[in-house]
Amino acid sequence: MSLKTAQEYIDSLRTRKLNLYMFGEKVDNYVDNPIIRPSINAMAMTYKLAEEPEYEDLMTVTSSLTGEKINRFTHLHQSTTDLMNKVKMQRLLGQKTGCCFQRCVGMDAFNAVFSTTFEIDAKYGTNYHERFTKYLIYVQQNDLVVDGCMTDARGDRSKSPGQQPDPDAYLRVVERREDGIVVRGCKLHQTGMVNSHEILVMPNNSMKNDEKDWAVCFAVPTETPGIIYVYGRQSSDTRKLEANKIDTGNINFGGQEIMTIFDDVFVPWERVFMNGETDFSTMLVERFAGYHRQSYGGCKVGTGDTLIGAAKAITDYNGVYKASHVKDKIVEMCHLNETLYACGIACSAEGRKTQSGNYMIDLLLANICKQNVTRFPYEIARIAQDLAGGLLVTLPSAEDFDHPEIGPLVKKYTQAAGDNTSEKRQRLLRLIENITMGCGAVAYLTESMHGAGSPQAQRIMISRLVDLEHKKELAEKICGIQENSDINWK
Amino acid sequence: MSLKTAQEYIDSLRTRKLNLYMFGEKVDNYVDNPIIRPSINAMAMTYKLAEEPEYEDLMTVTSSLTGEKINRFTHLHQSTTDLMNKVKMQRLLGQKTGCCFQRCVGMDAFNAVFSTTFEIDAKYGTNYHERFTKYLIYVQQNDLVVDGCMTDARGDRSKSPGQQPDPDAYLRVVERREDGIVVRGCKLHQTGMVNSHEILVMPNNSMKNDEKDWAVCFAVPTETPGIIYVYGRQSSDTRKLEANKIDTGNINFGGQEIMTIFDDVFVPWERVFMNGETDFSTMLVERFAGYHRQSYGGCKVGTGDTLIGAAKAITDYNGVYKASHVKDKIVEMCHLNETLYACGIACSAEGRKTQSGNYMIDLLLANICKQNVTRFPYEIARIAQDLAGGLLVTLPSAEDFDHPEIGPLVKKYTQAAGDNTSEKRQRLLRLIENITMGCGAVAYLTESMHGAGSPQAQRIMISRLVDLEHKKELAEKICGIQENSDINWK
Amino acid sequence: MSLKTAQEYIDSLRTRKLNLYMFGEKVDNYVDNPIIRPSINAMAMTYKLAEEPEYEDLMTVTSSLTGEKINRFTHLHQSTTDLMNKVKMQRLLGQKTGCCFQRCVGMDAFNAVFSTTFEIDAKYGTNYHERFTKYLIYVQQNDLVVDGCMTDARGDRSKSPGQQPDPDAYLRVVERREDGIVVRGCKLHQTGMVNSHEILVMPNNSMKNDEKDWAVCFAVPTETPGIIYVYGRQSSDTRKLEANKIDTGNINFGGQEIMTIFDDVFVPWERVFMNGETDFSTMLVERFAGYHRQSYGGCKVGTGDTLIGAAKAITDYNGVYKASHVKDKIVEMCHLNETLYACGIACSAEGRKTQSGNYMIDLLLANICKQNVTRFPYEIARIAQDLAGGLLVTLPSAEDFDHPEIGPLVKKYTQAAGDNTSEKRQRLLRLIENITMGCGAVAYLTESMHGAGSPQAQRIMISRLVDLEHKKELAEKICGIQENSDINWK
Amino acid sequence: MSLKTAQEYIDSLRTRKLNLYMFGEKVDNYVDNPIIRPSINAMAMTYKLAEEPEYEDLMTVTSSLTGEKINRFTHLHQSTTDLMNKVKMQRLLGQKTGCCFQRCVGMDAFNAVFSTTFEIDAKYGTNYHERFTKYLIYVQQNDLVVDGCMTDARGDRSKSPGQQPDPDAYLRVVERREDGIVVRGCKLHQTGMVNSHEILVMPNNSMKNDEKDWAVCFAVPTETPGIIYVYGRQSSDTRKLEANKIDTGNINFGGQEIMTIFDDVFVPWERVFMNGETDFSTMLVERFAGYHRQSYGGCKVGTGDTLIGAAKAITDYNGVYKASHVKDKIVEMCHLNETLYACGIACSAEGRKTQSGNYMIDLLLANICKQNVTRFPYEIARIAQDLAGGLLVTLPSAEDFDHPEIGPLVKKYTQAAGDNTSEKRQRLLRLIENITMGCGAVAYLTESMHGAGSPQAQRIMISRLVDLEHKKELAEKICGIQENSDINWK
Repeated sequence: MSLKTAQEYIDSLRTRKLNLYMFGEKVDNYVDNPIIRPSINAMAMTYKLAEEPEYEDLMTVTSSLTGEKINRFTHLHQSTTDLMNKVKMQRLLGQKTGCCFQRCVGMDAFNAVFSTTFEIDAKYGTNYHERFTKYLIYVQQNDLVVDGCMTDARGDRSKSPGQQPDPDAYLRVVERREDGIVVRGCKLHQTGMVNSHEILVMPNNSMKNDEKDWAVCFAVPTETPGIIYVYGRQSSDTRKLEANKIDTGNINFGGQEIMTIFDDVFVPWERVFMNGETDFSTMLVERFAGYHRQSYGGCKVGTGDTLIGAAKAITDYNGVYKASHVKDKIVEMCHLNETLYACGIACSAEGRKTQSGNYMIDLLLANICKQNVTRFPYEIARIAQDLAGGLLVTLPSAEDFDHPEIGPLVKKYTQAAGDNTSEKRQRLLRLIENITMGCGAVAYLTESMHGAGSPQAQRIMISRLVDLEHKKELAEKICGIQENSDINWK
Repeated sequence: MSLKTAQEYIDSLRTRKLNLYMFGEKVDNYVDNPIIRPSINAMAMTYKLAEEPEYEDLMTVTSSLTGEKINRFTHLHQSTTDLMNKVKMQRLLGQKTGCCFQRCVGMDAFNAVFSTTFEIDAKYGTNYHERFTKYLIYVQQNDLVVDGCMTDARGDRSKSPGQQPDPDAYLRVVERREDGIVVRGCKLHQTGMVNSHEILVMPNNSMKNDEKDWAVCFAVPTETPGIIYVYGRQSSDTRKLEANKIDTGNINFGGQEIMTIFDDVFVPWERVFMNGETDFSTMLVERFAGYHRQSYGGCKVGTGDTLIGAAKAITDYNGVYKASHVKDKIVEMCHLNETLYACGIACSAEGRKTQSGNYMIDLLLANICKQNVTRFPYEIARIAQDLAGGLLVTLPSAEDFDHPEIGPLVKKYTQAAGDNTSEKRQRLLRLIENITMGCGAVAYLTESMHGAGSPQAQRIMISRLVDLEHKKELAEKICGIQENSDINWK
Repeated sequence: MSLKTAQEYIDSLRTRKLNLYMFGEKVDNYVDNPIIRPSINAMAMTYKLAEEPEYEDLMTVTSSLTGEKINRFTHLHQSTTDLMNKVKMQRLLGQKTGCCFQRCVGMDAFNAVFSTTFEIDAKYGTNYHERFTKYLIYVQQNDLVVDGCMTDARGDRSKSPGQQPDPDAYLRVVERREDGIVVRGCKLHQTGMVNSHEILVMPNNSMKNDEKDWAVCFAVPTETPGIIYVYGRQSSDTRKLEANKIDTGNINFGGQEIMTIFDDVFVPWERVFMNGETDFSTMLVERFAGYHRQSYGGCKVGTGDTLIGAAKAITDYNGVYKASHVKDKIVEMCHLNETLYACGIACSAEGRKTQSGNYMIDLLLANICKQNVTRFPYEIARIAQDLAGGLLVTLPSAEDFDHPEIGPLVKKYTQAAGDNTSEKRQRLLRLIENITMGCGAVAYLTESMHGAGSPQAQRIMISRLVDLEHKKELAEKICGIQENSDINWK
Repeated sequence: MSLKTAQEYIDSLRTRKLNLYMFGEKVDNYVDNPIIRPSINAMAMTYKLAEEPEYEDLMTVTSSLTGEKINRFTHLHQSTTDLMNKVKMQRLLGQKTGCCFQRCVGMDAFNAVFSTTFEIDAKYGTNYHERFTKYLIYVQQNDLVVDGCMTDARGDRSKSPGQQPDPDAYLRVVERREDGIVVRGCKLHQTGMVNSHEILVMPNNSMKNDEKDWAVCFAVPTETPGIIYVYGRQSSDTRKLEANKIDTGNINFGGQEIMTIFDDVFVPWERVFMNGETDFSTMLVERFAGYHRQSYGGCKVGTGDTLIGAAKAITDYNGVYKASHVKDKIVEMCHLNETLYACGIACSAEGRKTQSGNYMIDLLLANICKQNVTRFPYEIARIAQDLAGGLLVTLPSAEDFDHPEIGPLVKKYTQAAGDNTSEKRQRLLRLIENITMGCGAVAYLTESMHGAGSPQAQRIMISRLVDLEHKKELAEKICGIQENSDINWK
């Protein structure tokens, strides 16, 4: 049986020795750290929902490699239906956690590396694909979390990897040994990294012929010596340290971003999946980014559902839901959110089989999807703040609500329509605050902007993937610059 | 063989006697009328492309009723792939004609009436479904164009059909005879009506129990006595009467909108598909509207492709395409256009089988699709006008370009980058003018706004179809108002 | 007395012999030509309103040059109040005509040439300013219309005037004689040209040192030999030729755009105001464009008022005004329209005195104003089409309404709420059609985009006029990169 | 001399005994509290800049009441120039503090109460105006900060004050005594309250005739017995408690929002300025809101300048400023920001004298201004996040940068273009985080949404202030529904 329970997953983390820093201090028991734990809970939900019969069809699937029942997060997509179910699974998780649940990067990396290594081998006679397939069977059978790892430090953005003053600005091979390679560099923005069992490292962008040292793809366990993790700050992160959890807004769940430094890390050959094939670097990047741009048409929609729900609830408790402008704003939120979902579904439905047999999304539509994701969540959040009212940012602390003397007054004056609305408003306002300007905004807004590539990256891809000359020809036929041979009737 | 050629289609119109008026005069030979002919050409393209091997898979399909090869425009969708192919076919036609090709309303009506009559019969033991199926076989076997006909005059919008001062404000049964019914009323905005062989009339909206006379669905040939057609004006319509066609912009194709008056028209019983079942009126309207809202994710995208192509071409001829802001604006046009396509595809991919066996689109996503269609074409058109430059609206007439004395000067001063650009610019500017403020704007903009229901109609549907209480529950679990039983680990 | 009546203005045109072409034919009596006359009527309103006591303060002013009462359209602005009144006058005219009234380009040119010639003379010791002042007194005393004339043919946009394959792509001096200069070239998009008495020609853009032939500014009467006028087409222009005027939408008024060819035209020295001072070309262009970008914060707002009024009226007659979404859309139209007005007022209120004594608008805010004008009218028009309903583009012709047989049926089925609404709806729909996709859209939309410079021109100016380094310094002080010496307390 | 120095202002706070709670604890020395102090510093800047000769003309003015030199924040506006200078002063303060400097509410309240009391007295023969004038002289002569205090708790929003289950939901007079009144209630969202010397309380909205107890306006010192202050939380507020200030982003400044509870507070008659005149409640609310909606066209623009500067700086340090899309995005930020400024200036320039002699802004344009403020800062913030890059939300803590072992690695991998960019990027990213999702976002975003009234409040005002019937008449004249008598020429 290849499936872990949520509890087994959490237990599997407890024994790991990671070199992890936060607020300038080394963190030993990170599983029970109140700032980190919510992100582990969110990840654990990818296991938990797979245990529930209601979600079995969405969360689990039969492995194309082993025939066993596995978690979809470790699956190679075998059809457009698989691609669409991926998006639906992500929307479900977003709804259940209201935050980033972190396990998508691995799934997206598997599918990209699987097809790319197949094509590298076809050209160069290497055996990366076999190595990777073995590795993936191991992942599936142990139901592991793998961090797909791409973004380098990049130094001066106007220079390519080989031109950087500091050659480590992009992760690179610094030594090639008989038993493997040694790598150095830093991967930024690593979502869910210390909640992962494994790291799957990919190159960050196109490489020139002479930049072989930077064209490297490999996997290592997260506890591999030489790796240093530095926990990223988030807006309002330390509220999680407070005794009363109400002010966190999202009581149980949260995200995680880690700066991951590879300080001369050894990788054995069987875990190396690309080593200098610079001409395949672009393919790998585009496929991973493509899958990940699709992902956002699921997960952000799920968080959006949560935020819309919070907006609906707060207007109920404020007693204003029946106002026509309120209803109309909620319709607009839904409209924008479903447009994102439509894009996630469309790039899946238009997917195609790769040479290696798994399915790839439609790259143009996946970029369209992500481009919309860089816009609509911000507008949804703006409307949510409109509907929440000013208390969103002026509400006293949870401790004030609990204070023996002033607490009753604070509650009296935050009571709205109906009974017991004071605490409900308090909780909902904190949730809306969380998603629109707190920890949750990190994932719902800024990650929507930059995750899987910043907006300009999608525009470049759109520009490359649309056939403008074909469109020009269409126009020239219609206005008579080119002859239209279709018209041959009387 | 069930397929007509384009020539056969046009010939089939020549013999029809229609009671048609335009500019206050009766039109006899409408097939060769220069204002009407472009709309017939556009319709003919739905036949022409079905003749071409390149498009055979998209344009033709095996009938689920007869097993014969038929034009997809007469098809009952048998799968989500069929639904997606419908959208692709519509995009193709939009690309080839740059305008409304008018045949979708019939296809959308077939599929809505087919499934609705099945459900009426199941409840009431009527035999509408059998009647309709026979009728549709006749349509398929003769490859006919059918105008799906819904929008009533509606009089005072704040009153329901039965409350109107003039009971004819909604089309209604005025007499029930042994051999059939007599109807009176007027259907507005009938796209492609006089280019059709048949009319399939549906009710316009929800009906109350006592509004049985208005709950009527039937089909009649377009040349049925008692029907009066009044041709609608379009912006710049009379340019089609001018000798030089360049100023029309779209040389061969155009749209058509007809006010269709039923002045006591007899319908035999075998052509009556609903007769007083007021409780199914809403279902029929929503299904037809749903299919038609999907359609716009195809046809408008095709016209959008044409407009983007024209914008690309004019910037080439103006010598400005390489400017970064120009490229970026074209990327934005593509982005918006592909977002519409994504919505058309998504509501198709999420389609489901009806009780009668044909496939229905996802209603929520189809409404999302149409809502975006009421916005993005306007922005695409705005950008096209930006890229076209001011000449778009100050260019002299084609006759001035041809004038022996001033013609050479006009050409000299409209020459841009490279040779022979004067006439190319002239043609492209006229095309952009056509689509953004001429005849083509009727279909690309205003019909995008109002066809298949005005924006508020979609908002009402979105409001009904999203489950806000479910979203509210999601939020309340996340912020702790409701307990989250999923979290049961340590 | 320096003021003409509207009738005197029209009479003054009747005697002018212009070499004017339209639809490939020479036009002799252009004053009574049904396509041209509406544009003359619009211009005449600048005289008519000056006759009315109600508008005297806005429309007339005391000349700074002669002390006489003059039409404000010939005035040199003497204060920020004058600048604000200019905008208010333009809004009033837009409200009264619903179209472009054409006289602003001259006013904006006067003010730009007046201050620029002063500064040329100060540097070079020339006497352009004195010449121009005399010329302007002549204009004021005879209450003339002057066409400010800037946009050249420009050929290949990627090349400067001196690099063009055809040197006439920018208007230039081809001969310098003892008594004056001879010029050749073509000015495109000349608004109201044949309704003007005089032409004031300015260079189109920045010039290099060796492009002296193109750095020329001068005035000539419109009937000067060698000038050829070619009338520009507009969407639906020929509806003005039809017997029934209802289908024009705007019954009395319209705009006019003329291609103006200077085929070796002689200009005497006393009418030459710049002749080779290439280093002042940019200043003249920027000042003229600046004033004209301010203008759009008035005139387009006035047309916007008309369109909002039409939208309000059509929703009244459709019986839907009370629907909350309808009211809200009208609020949005007003909001956007007033934002444009705010920009027009603000750049005026922040105006400053030039060296020559007249007042210049704030250049940054004038560019902000125009940039918004390239966006908001399109959105206002989109909402107007939303509120108008589909009949906007499917309504039969006026002749069909008048037809003895079908007319009564057409009226019956276009009757809405209340009595006699059929013709009112017809007229209002035609007006909305006119402004959003007919002749009026030329001015309200496309001219809003390109008049006074295309959007990218404003973005370049904004980029030059904002002080980004100052803003950067502000930020660096606040985050502690630079020390903040302001904080010196305890 | 009426002017305090910044130091004197701060010293004046030290002696005040306030009943203030934060995080469930009573705060005694609030002046030195690290969470509160930044807000005091921001307020102090309104004194500090008045000391600087460079800003003297903007920051100080001659009192219309005493003829003495006073701080403009205590001034009654005497002209449209005064109104425009108010906006410019606010922009300056926003630039210098990057946050809300809190003193505007008092200024806006003075001007509203001054003119309203004049009109109450004129109708009822009361002497509120004289009382208030004396009070304002006291404020001016002591250069005091006054909190203008309006928003009530409001309970169930669908009910008016007199209908609330809890009558204290709106602040009200609970006792009328010989020497004054006793009031009870709660004012929410009180900006800068504990940094103020005085509170000027106004009613929150329109009142019915029988709601006299709620129609009350008065002033009391902040240390008046019975008042309880509860400090509102802000996103990331506790970062101010950390030793290293870099992570606060805004090193010295911040905002403050206070729930202010009036638990039976006595007010002597000479400080009562309205007492039951329900028919003037609307006027007072609209005037205060109007002035405050103008204010946002200054202060938010100043913060916007800071954010634009930060975006410019971060793109410099990232080495990407030269990319055309980056430049264009900064132009867009400037465009939106200056549009807000234009609205602030325009409603000032169109101001008018009240009956009492001070100047009132144009109410329609002030509402237009605020409506844009509810939109554009969100878009500016979105673009800022785009330009900042993903590090914005994944950056390790300041303590990690300082750590002896990992600090050098963290700096190595956050180095970008040029030397020493690591700390600069760190500081700028924290500033952008502050303004877009931290403490600063409270003022820059959510307060922009809700301060001075939520967006719907402006829409209601716009709806009331535009003359739709006049616009309708304009349209009807142009399309011929009404006759146009202006056209009387041939």
